[in-house]
Amino acid sequence: MANTEIKNAFYAQSGGVTAVINASACGLIETARKHTDKIGKVYAGRNGIIGALTEDLIDTSQESDSDIAALKHTPGGAFGSCRHKLKSIEENEAEYKRLIEVFAAHNIGYFFYNGGGDSQDTAHKVSQIGEKMGYPMTCIGVPKTVDNDLPITDCCPGFGSVAKYVATSIREASFDVASMAKTSTKVFVMEVMGRHAGWIAAAGGLATEKTGDAPHIILFPEIVFNEEKFLAKVKDSVEQYGYCSIVVSEGVKNAEGTFLAEAGGADAFGHKQLGGVAPVIAELIKAKCGYKYHWAVADYLQRSARHIASKTDVDQAYALGKKAVEYALEGQNAIMPTIDRKNDNPYEWEIGMAKLADVANVEKMMPKDYITSDGFHITDACRTYLQPLILGEDYPPFKNGLPDYVTLKNIGVDKKLDSTFEI
Amino acid sequence: MANTEIKNAFYAQSGGVTAVINASACGLIETARKHTDKIGKVYAGRNGIIGALTEDLIDTSQESDSDIAALKHTPGGAFGSCRHKLKSIEENEAEYKRLIEVFAAHNIGYFFYNGGGDSQDTAHKVSQIGEKMGYPMTCIGVPKTVDNDLPITDCCPGFGSVAKYVATSIREASFDVASMAKTSTKVFVMEVMGRHAGWIAAAGGLATEKTGDAPHIILFPEIVFNEEKFLAKVKDSVEQYGYCSIVVSEGVKNAEGTFLAEAGGADAFGHKQLGGVAPVIAELIKAKCGYKYHWAVADYLQRSARHIASKTDVDQAYALGKKAVEYALEGQNAIMPTIDRKNDNPYEWEIGMAKLADVANVEKMMPKDYITSDGFHITDACRTYLQPLILGEDYPPFKNGLPDYVTLKNIGVDKKLDSTFEI
Repeated sequence: MANTEIKNAFYAQSGGVTAVINASACGLIETARKHTDKIGKVYAGRNGIIGALTEDLIDTSQESDSDIAALKHTPGGAFGSCRHKLKSIEENEAEYKRLIEVFAAHNIGYFFYNGGGDSQDTAHKVSQIGEKMGYPMTCIGVPKTVDNDLPITDCCPGFGSVAKYVATSIREASFDVASMAKTSTKVFVMEVMGRHAGWIAAAGGLATEKTGDAPHIILFPEIVFNEEKFLAKVKDSVEQYGYCSIVVSEGVKNAEGTFLAEAGGADAFGHKQLGGVAPVIAELIKAKCGYKYHWAVADYLQRSARHIASKTDVDQAYALGKKAVEYALEGQNAIMPTIDRKNDNPYEWEIGMAKLADVANVEKMMPKDYITSDGFHITDACRTYLQPLILGEDYPPFKNGLPDYVTLKNIGVDKKLDSTFEI
Repeated sequence: MANTEIKNAFYAQSGGVTAVINASACGLIETARKHTDKIGKVYAGRNGIIGALTEDLIDTSQESDSDIAALKHTPGGAFGSCRHKLKSIEENEAEYKRLIEVFAAHNIGYFFYNGGGDSQDTAHKVSQIGEKMGYPMTCIGVPKTVDNDLPITDCCPGFGSVAKYVATSIREASFDVASMAKTSTKVFVMEVMGRHAGWIAAAGGLATEKTGDAPHIILFPEIVFNEEKFLAKVKDSVEQYGYCSIVVSEGVKNAEGTFLAEAGGADAFGHKQLGGVAPVIAELIKAKCGYKYHWAVADYLQRSARHIASKTDVDQAYALGKKAVEYALEGQNAIMPTIDRKNDNPYEWEIGMAKLADVANVEKMMPKDYITSDGFHITDACRTYLQPLILGEDYPPFKNGLPDYVTLKNIGVDKKLDSTFEI
């Protein structure tokens, strides 16, 4: 076989990272390493697509097999990620010309893009450069987002692990609060991510297995905050169970459409930044009901908590990275491997396929029938959907009492172009 | 042997609960169950000492062996805790008379009190009722506090698990931030507990194993906050490592001695409650350096995170509960079993003993030489002390993807007294 048949691959991580995006990278690189007759080297973009635009490529072939294997249990984005959405070819042809220039210089024929909705849109645009700009390229999207809002796929890698973290954390903190409620803290509020959709907040509901179990209230971005109903529910919980445990999404809004985090007022410096609805809710309860409270904001802890990752999530993330390469080698193009659910209980899934054109810019919202009629908890339908996604534990190795995560060498590929590019 | 030789035991949990206080309860009850020739039933106070004062006792003999065993892996306080400090016998004789009335009515001859500094003070006072009020009673304190501030004992059960949680969490979140720093979040601030002493904040420093590792800055309550030095250090970290990861103790104060959490201004409702220094620090950085930030407040999550408990901590908590009973049966009185360190590495410890008189009202502060000279990190001496305390994992069983924690039946003992008691 002629050497020219062998093309290198480009892989990049995009958008907010997760506890398992590196598991996808692991599946992808390990699989590529088994097909050296077709795929030469896997070059990773340093800090996502920016690495391609600036010709800042990482040579993953310099990493040992054991370090690549360790990606499967390491959170964060091993090659760096970024938030950079490509415009359409018509709007910013220069960026695409630059990509082709870099890809051609490094004999890149495969483009793997690991990210959420915006990233799949970017992958879709890049997949058009063959037809529109004459540079043939195999483009495969690899799904990832804690927001769980990609269409077609049953779920998104990253989400199951956040879900497991949130449900575990609210259960644990509620055991604590229940102990103290008689004479001290009666209300606990835990803020979770999810600006537009309540998937992560909903996951907290999995901790409730029977009546009275925490959390007693979930505040969803899908439900307009009704102060009166909410406070009545808080009082009811405290009276019935001795305490009230609450999961609140950062995206909860009032009737005016303002984020509660912002409606609570500006901070000491007069700045506003999303995050911080938990203290607003807690103070409201204190002011109106007099209950002593505690609150937590999990923030990045929730999406990086690899130590309590869902094994289902890790397995799926790895399988999607692996299948991305296999699809590419089968000659597929402009597609994204998906998780297809075959059965709820026992959970059965397999890898399917979606066209990038059908994935790009479509946001999967939570079905209305996943929220109870009072707006404060999840339904059985929601539980049936969510439950399998948190199944199984996949602990990382520990060293000196702490998770032993890998930091790659990330050695750069020698630049071949004289030109530079301004982002 | 005459039945009158057999006395019942009273056990209560006191103050803020932890991930492993129930492991002490487990060790204590399992050991008592092996000595039915001396100890009849173990009665637990419902909500701590309040349960004794109100004759609200829980009959732990109604719990199955397997449920008692499950306490070893269940966070929170299984019998309820409270914050109620007894005054001295001279100041409030009525409370002690009431205790004697309840203990006598239920043939209680052993008093086990599981808590921190205030609780050991209470245990010490109760130990005096034999001499001062003619009711002979064996009083044993069982140490517990995430604050790690009890004297004599090498460490306090509950602390090692918080330490492991905090070091794990800041490492994980920092892997996330490092990935995003090029184009997005450059600063991450994680707030941890510890109003008076920086033990918990210091534990975050264990995540730093080599130069450049997160966290880059630790803010201790022991060190007056110096805005200028702090901001310079933040900038330095961002320039050197691309990002800056910070652990801040809730107890950090400015030069005026005001908690930074409060100095940042009142919230929207004009209230102040400790908790919330992370957003104050984050906003300060944004205002002065312009860096995009994220912040987290772990709050109760840190002290209830049984899923990531330190095995060393769990083992010690169990051993202290067990030894409390054994000391009582040996005829010891007015003492608290302690952890005595025999070697740093490999860590070796055994159970020792301290007089309650020497424990009560003494707060163990962090040695000055545990903080680096710039005030922003821990020294090797501190690392040598802390490292063994987080060693080992002791995962709880999981069911349906979540930790399977036990909720006891907590069946009350029939009241024998006509009188009631107002707390």
